[in-house]
Amino acid sequence: MKIMDEVMKMHVGGKLETGLKNPIRSMEDLSKVYTPGVAKVCQAIAADQDKAYEYTIKKNSVAVVSDGTAVLGLGDIGPKAAMPVMEGKAALFKQFADVDAFPICLDTKDTEEIIAIVKAIAPTFGGINLEDISSPRCFEIEARLKQELDIPVFHDDQHGTAIVVLAGILNALRVCNKDIKNVKIVVNGIGAAGIAVSKMLLHAGAVNLIGVDRQGAINRAVHYDKSHWSEFALITNPHLERGSLSEVIQGADVFIGLSAPGALKLGDVKRMAADPIVFAMANPTPEIDPEIAAPYVKVMATGRSDFPNQINNVLCFPGIFRGALDCGATEINEDMKLAAAEAISSVIDASDLHETYIMPNAFDPRVVERIREAVIRAALKSGVARIGTLMESNNT
Amino acid sequence: MKIMDEVMKMHVGGKLETGLKNPIRSMEDLSKVYTPGVAKVCQAIAADQDKAYEYTIKKNSVAVVSDGTAVLGLGDIGPKAAMPVMEGKAALFKQFADVDAFPICLDTKDTEEIIAIVKAIAPTFGGINLEDISSPRCFEIEARLKQELDIPVFHDDQHGTAIVVLAGILNALRVCNKDIKNVKIVVNGIGAAGIAVSKMLLHAGAVNLIGVDRQGAINRAVHYDKSHWSEFALITNPHLERGSLSEVIQGADVFIGLSAPGALKLGDVKRMAADPIVFAMANPTPEIDPEIAAPYVKVMATGRSDFPNQINNVLCFPGIFRGALDCGATEINEDMKLAAAEAISSVIDASDLHETYIMPNAFDPRVVERIREAVIRAALKSGVARIGTLMESNNT
Repeated sequence: MKIMDEVMKMHVGGKLETGLKNPIRSMEDLSKVYTPGVAKVCQAIAADQDKAYEYTIKKNSVAVVSDGTAVLGLGDIGPKAAMPVMEGKAALFKQFADVDAFPICLDTKDTEEIIAIVKAIAPTFGGINLEDISSPRCFEIEARLKQELDIPVFHDDQHGTAIVVLAGILNALRVCNKDIKNVKIVVNGIGAAGIAVSKMLLHAGAVNLIGVDRQGAINRAVHYDKSHWSEFALITNPHLERGSLSEVIQGADVFIGLSAPGALKLGDVKRMAADPIVFAMANPTPEIDPEIAAPYVKVMATGRSDFPNQINNVLCFPGIFRGALDCGATEINEDMKLAAAEAISSVIDASDLHETYIMPNAFDPRVVERIREAVIRAALKSGVARIGTLMESNNT
Repeated sequence: MKIMDEVMKMHVGGKLETGLKNPIRSMEDLSKVYTPGVAKVCQAIAADQDKAYEYTIKKNSVAVVSDGTAVLGLGDIGPKAAMPVMEGKAALFKQFADVDAFPICLDTKDTEEIIAIVKAIAPTFGGINLEDISSPRCFEIEARLKQELDIPVFHDDQHGTAIVVLAGILNALRVCNKDIKNVKIVVNGIGAAGIAVSKMLLHAGAVNLIGVDRQGAINRAVHYDKSHWSEFALITNPHLERGSLSEVIQGADVFIGLSAPGALKLGDVKRMAADPIVFAMANPTPEIDPEIAAPYVKVMATGRSDFPNQINNVLCFPGIFRGALDCGATEINEDMKLAAAEAISSVIDASDLHETYIMPNAFDPRVVERIREAVIRAALKSGVARIGTLMESNNT
């Protein structure tokens, strides 16, 4: 009770404010940051639009955009009630990576309208972080914005989650001396996050990955009304396994839950391969009680801070945007995401790696720094870094 | 040259940043400002939407919205090139009145789309400052948003200008011992600002006000294609005067120029009444050179900081939003604007008032404080203050 009151108190007046890079103390200052001096800056940008990256906040600004339809585990609570989460996210961007993020909560759920709005406000920003937008609208919104904008668009619930899960899996596999190419992975809960996590694992080399939702293993032999399931079926479940979670988990090396409390039974864990890895990330109550599962699991991870191996998106989004903004990336592509995951897992030295220590601490400054470097390198290599392009064109 | 380079340098990386009200230093902090603690705050707002004013940044946040179509004297330079002005405005909001304003530059010129976007982003903000949107679209956009939103919507180019002009005119009339009810006022340039200035003067008691544009005095006997001119004609020019500026300025006590350099000739000034007041606000070059006009004018004002009596919007918008936000006003109405103008003029004591000192210094802290108090009082009296309503309902 006391803690909760303290939480409410911390939120009075909100968590974010604006600040001036240079104070305005005199009429002379005023005439430089505003009229008449500012006209010169406007004209420079009008003549060369790319100068917006040099003379405005664009280069370091990210919009945290939500329509409030899928906020935490609370569901569709609307744009005003979503504000504390989006402000919190913006605050984390600033605290961890000095990114100037601003919450934009939208009073519309219309897919086309959301796309039009984000496109329209994009001139102000160097990146768009989509947040807590319900599935399947989030797929269309993200895909269209990625296609139509020349700045990174990143749906953190999908890709941030996918990156930190992959980072954790990479280290958990090291602990177990297993190779991602050979393991059997079961992903339970094929929503936006489950699909993104699965794609990320496949991109990192996984082959035998099976998605399970309420009606059992997703299988390309079945027709699904949900088009994202049909597409998912095409790239997963190579042996066309069928049946419930309890059936397909037989012999699995890795369980990844993005589902609901109690979804994984102890009997299921016992049917897994030797040295099983269980990521039970339903929040706040995991798919299986970590203390009950512990004796039967080699590496256990959850979304909670009160157990070892917390899988927390805050490990990813500050660093990945820091890197993308610093090289003026036009997108955050698969290679950049993979690089970010590897960077996170690399923070833990091989000698320190342990079944209860696969994820670095979010406050370890190496996390953001390593992601940043890895993301810039991947962006340059894949040709999506504006800065790299400029450097190249200067050389020719 | 040196000064301009310094201006460009001051703009590198933009002028604005975000800041955290409370630093996030530990996992415990993290769990309060973000998940899982934040859920409690979201739920409180979901249950009572008005709590957004208590627990989010809404209460102190203003969007500075532009489509970049009428930026300074530069015209339609686009949303990216408009950013330095909107950032500057946001910086002034913070510096002068501790309002957290954020620039939103829109990549669309479509009236309906701009209205839809501003409505959609409104949950985040406690007020909307429209800026540098070209006429006549600015009328429709502002009118519709005022009607459809429950937060103040204020087009500064119209109403901010109108308020500071009225403040200046009130003091200039005091210097000349003239009564606003009896003077003849000629407003030259009947665009968005000219119309707003005229309406403000009429609201403050002016009767004999004549608007002049390129084809001469606006007169209700004439049919105008521009509907805002037809409406303007209905409320002005009571004696149905006709003719050019040089004709209708005969016997005028006040000239207000929102037009173009050179629009006012010395011969025109000489035809004005005794102790004429000339506000020549074309920027950066006034309607008449103040040094040439000086011998024939009692009170001369311009938009420039290098002459006495600068009419500068920065005297108004920080204070009027400070007041509106502090009482949770649902709009900024005519009475609040009039109160703001009187508050600005009141900063100069009667004993200090002089033909070269009718406007207070923008850095005088009394400016914002007096506007704030006056605006809150007017909002309470006119029943548009949310705080007043809450206080009343607590009393019953």
